[in-house]
Amino acid sequence: MLRTHTCGELTINDTGLQVTLCGWVQRSRDLGGMTFVDLRDRFGITQLVFNMDTNAQLCEEARKLGREYVILIVGKVAERSNKNLKMATGEIEIIVDKIDVLNESKTPPFTIEDNTDGGEELRMKYRYLDLRRNSVRKNLELRHRMAFQTRNYMDSIRFIEVETPVLIKSTPEGARDYVVPSRVNPGEFYALPQSPQTFKQLLMVAGYDRYFQIVKCFRDEDLRADRQPEFTQIDCEMSFVTQEDIFNTFEGLIKHLFKTVKNVDIENLPRMTWADAMKNYGCDKPDTRFGMCFTEITSLVQGKDFKVFDDAELVVGINAEGCAEYTRKQLDELTEFVKKPQIGAGGLIYVRYAADGTLKSSVDKFYSPEELKKWAEAFNAKPGDLLLVLAGKAGKTRKALNELRLEMGSRLRLRNPETFSPLWVYDFPLLEWDEESQRFYAMHHPFTSPKPEDIALLDTNPGSVRANAYDMVINGVEVGGGSIRIHNKPLQHKMLQLLGFSEDDAQAQFGFLMNAFEFGAPPHGGIAFGFDRLCSLFGGSESIRDYIAFPKNNAARDVMIDSPSRISEEQLKELSLKVSI
Amino acid sequence: MLRTHTCGELTINDTGLQVTLCGWVQRSRDLGGMTFVDLRDRFGITQLVFNMDTNAQLCEEARKLGREYVILIVGKVAERSNKNLKMATGEIEIIVDKIDVLNESKTPPFTIEDNTDGGEELRMKYRYLDLRRNSVRKNLELRHRMAFQTRNYMDSIRFIEVETPVLIKSTPEGARDYVVPSRVNPGEFYALPQSPQTFKQLLMVAGYDRYFQIVKCFRDEDLRADRQPEFTQIDCEMSFVTQEDIFNTFEGLIKHLFKTVKNVDIENLPRMTWADAMKNYGCDKPDTRFGMCFTEITSLVQGKDFKVFDDAELVVGINAEGCAEYTRKQLDELTEFVKKPQIGAGGLIYVRYAADGTLKSSVDKFYSPEELKKWAEAFNAKPGDLLLVLAGKAGKTRKALNELRLEMGSRLRLRNPETFSPLWVYDFPLLEWDEESQRFYAMHHPFTSPKPEDIALLDTNPGSVRANAYDMVINGVEVGGGSIRIHNKPLQHKMLQLLGFSEDDAQAQFGFLMNAFEFGAPPHGGIAFGFDRLCSLFGGSESIRDYIAFPKNNAARDVMIDSPSRISEEQLKELSLKVSI
Repeated sequence: MLRTHTCGELTINDTGLQVTLCGWVQRSRDLGGMTFVDLRDRFGITQLVFNMDTNAQLCEEARKLGREYVILIVGKVAERSNKNLKMATGEIEIIVDKIDVLNESKTPPFTIEDNTDGGEELRMKYRYLDLRRNSVRKNLELRHRMAFQTRNYMDSIRFIEVETPVLIKSTPEGARDYVVPSRVNPGEFYALPQSPQTFKQLLMVAGYDRYFQIVKCFRDEDLRADRQPEFTQIDCEMSFVTQEDIFNTFEGLIKHLFKTVKNVDIENLPRMTWADAMKNYGCDKPDTRFGMCFTEITSLVQGKDFKVFDDAELVVGINAEGCAEYTRKQLDELTEFVKKPQIGAGGLIYVRYAADGTLKSSVDKFYSPEELKKWAEAFNAKPGDLLLVLAGKAGKTRKALNELRLEMGSRLRLRNPETFSPLWVYDFPLLEWDEESQRFYAMHHPFTSPKPEDIALLDTNPGSVRANAYDMVINGVEVGGGSIRIHNKPLQHKMLQLLGFSEDDAQAQFGFLMNAFEFGAPPHGGIAFGFDRLCSLFGGSESIRDYIAFPKNNAARDVMIDSPSRISEEQLKELSLKVSI
Repeated sequence: MLRTHTCGELTINDTGLQVTLCGWVQRSRDLGGMTFVDLRDRFGITQLVFNMDTNAQLCEEARKLGREYVILIVGKVAERSNKNLKMATGEIEIIVDKIDVLNESKTPPFTIEDNTDGGEELRMKYRYLDLRRNSVRKNLELRHRMAFQTRNYMDSIRFIEVETPVLIKSTPEGARDYVVPSRVNPGEFYALPQSPQTFKQLLMVAGYDRYFQIVKCFRDEDLRADRQPEFTQIDCEMSFVTQEDIFNTFEGLIKHLFKTVKNVDIENLPRMTWADAMKNYGCDKPDTRFGMCFTEITSLVQGKDFKVFDDAELVVGINAEGCAEYTRKQLDELTEFVKKPQIGAGGLIYVRYAADGTLKSSVDKFYSPEELKKWAEAFNAKPGDLLLVLAGKAGKTRKALNELRLEMGSRLRLRNPETFSPLWVYDFPLLEWDEESQRFYAMHHPFTSPKPEDIALLDTNPGSVRANAYDMVINGVEVGGGSIRIHNKPLQHKMLQLLGFSEDDAQAQFGFLMNAFEFGAPPHGGIAFGFDRLCSLFGGSESIRDYIAFPKNNAARDVMIDSPSRISEEQLKELSLKVSI
């Protein structure tokens, strides 16, 4: 190595040692007689010192070093007079004898600091400079640690990592595939996998028993803020298991990750049915860092001539504890919030349960204090609390109240990113009815098994059939989901019929999997975790992009390398393709 | 779990234990009063026993079990009377009380045995059954172990695994790219990476210091027997290093892999210049499991009126020790071998150094025994040896003699797949002249740095410039290669000029990398290992396909899922593409 030490390891114990360091010039301060330079590498920052009195020429050299110059220095470790105990190397500095400029640098277009002055677009274009920032580097180090510890855990319980192919086959079901034209098979295309689902099931048929893979997946979607065309999954599958085994195994994984990466101890994961999640939180991925569960008061409040409630399918609310003193302005803000088009409530009813025990509401015209008292009892409210109530169609109202609950959670600072509340949500519906196409879709995917006790309902009331499907949810984020699969052909056949596949379509799309199932498929099930999302959650960030080394923007472009781009006519011709815009 | 134990773990110490096992019926033997069934899972095979006398009905059930049926059994562990000490579970059997057939199986199209009766095509079509075979499963387990131990080692020396993007940008240099049409950017394409070369260099610019990744790469080549359109690399890069540091670091990796995966201790790797490899072995990836180095005798043998030698640029041979007794037929076979078109020698000259000390050659007409004695001395031959000599143009003759040497190594069983002889080959030429296009190509890639002492030659004799480039070679296989990179812009610029890039072309293709180099690029270098190849080498196999779960065939097709395939007109339209065959 050109260096003897990194910029992060020298301490007071090394005083007097002659060292060689390499790194980038983070900043330099010229104090007249002395010049200080902070030298940075991946491992830390070490202070270099140059003294005009003892070596004027070298000091002049040091003054000429620009930000982000790459230098090699030789010098001696000395104790600092002015110690910085926040830094690992803060007790020492290097009295430099020699500087080699290994490479100069133009002035970067933004500062290489945690709080940089660069906007997102600029930082994406110069991602290689953005990646130098401490905060970004820490994210990628976290990601490495997460992947490494995932593999350690999975290996320790005899999972085998198997690479499945990237060039596979396009299937019309699900999201759009990215496709890859084949030159040697003109007119034919590979597809990039949206997930290795069929391959992992084939590996179970092949007897691999416990498979996992940290794997890139691809989805050609119209991009939303926090989606990427390529993303990474921790993909897992096990044979001879029940749902209970999946829960135990992957509870183990998440505990291991929290312990080894964050040094956080996680309790056994609570379990919540999908029906309870919808009823109590209005969503299938509840943020359980705080309570504020829904209370339904429909029958309690109807029949008092308040038309909004009388016409409503559901009247439901939350108790914002300690918020009775909310001002008119704050309540107006909340009303505006729920009336936003993307939330879609018609209005917000509130009841203030004042500290003195009196009850005041926005519907005092219709409800007496005695009646409001009964509301308060239903909500388990106490003096000082604020009840927030919505009414309307059940589904829409729950959805809106979920948003209001999260908003209140944020306002009350109940959603600390360093608190972690994981749980299992299970018993998802097997099927979802689509009004537009008048058909059922698989809520999870077509290989998900119905609960055995619900199989009879497949013929009579398919919409009510529950699946052996589950999500792991942390802090309101679905970090993973999976199911116990169908492993016998007749049931798979019936399922595909329900989903509206013709015999031919089913054969064309899933033929090889269904054929494989005829050669002794074991009972099996699995789960896939969104790895980018899991990393951002562990890092306490909302954006997955911060945890991807070279992300694409919202238009699916990599602005650094300027991709996608045109290709040559010759390439197109070799691929037997014409562009037709 | 549906089971209490796997099929690989019960021993004599478990005698009397009630157990539940799940697995596949490997085979069953009906011996009249007794029926034996071998139950298989990933972990092993356990013998089940059914007794007609004690439970006739169950025994009848057992007799109906077909090959590859998936069953669950409950029974008691008992000591076997007829022990099989070759099997981990060979001392016990299970006296079964209950059978559950979890899934039936059609009769597989080939036997699930190490020596199967299925041809390659059939096994590829039913790869999920082929994967059940013990020999195939062991290969994938080895691959998992290799990847896991690679990560362990790299992490232990502070390398960070960073995922680089799969959807990147097409560059005309090098092999053909696979491209991916962009729907949201009509007429534009991503490319799949042939390697993460530019991204790993950008990570060095970004200060990541030590990067690695086990990563899929893609190359749209006309396929040869042992190439795959998608393949896996261990991709690595380090900053502030010399070639010596790369050698030490990755020598460490390979030793770690041999030790942890194969329990083989590897000595420090010998180092051989490219020039020496070419001179002594006629190839840049010598199989050093055996000697038989080349001996050049051009000046010794010329001027004796033997036209073949007199006209030759090079006369060179090998000493096949102990082969003096080769028959006429054997020597004819070797002559035929070197005259094959793909080897291309005009003929083979031999000298037998008989045990009695007499020398006999195929050129006795031209050379006296005294002269042949001098040959023998040049070859360090002793009585009993056989000299094999080729003559002609230097390059072609060395190439042919390399093939002959390998052939002799095989015939003499000097190439044991369980012996491992790794080495470094270094000081490769920087450039390769292409006669057809009358230009230089980068032998490694355009970012490889010349040796500092050869830089002056770039202007006067570019073809003679040596590069800071190196390969790791094991048993005649190039398992990895890399170089110290160019890290400053003027030298990179000059290199691209030499390679015939116009200013515009260079900017269009490598602009973002060259721009990045202006912001403080550190000295850096790296290496990439062919992971599929490395696994096959560790497994003692010649074929990488045996170490890939779902390989493609020689026509780049996956015959199991039948891919590539046509896509719908709608998909093409969305992608603004037309097929034009």
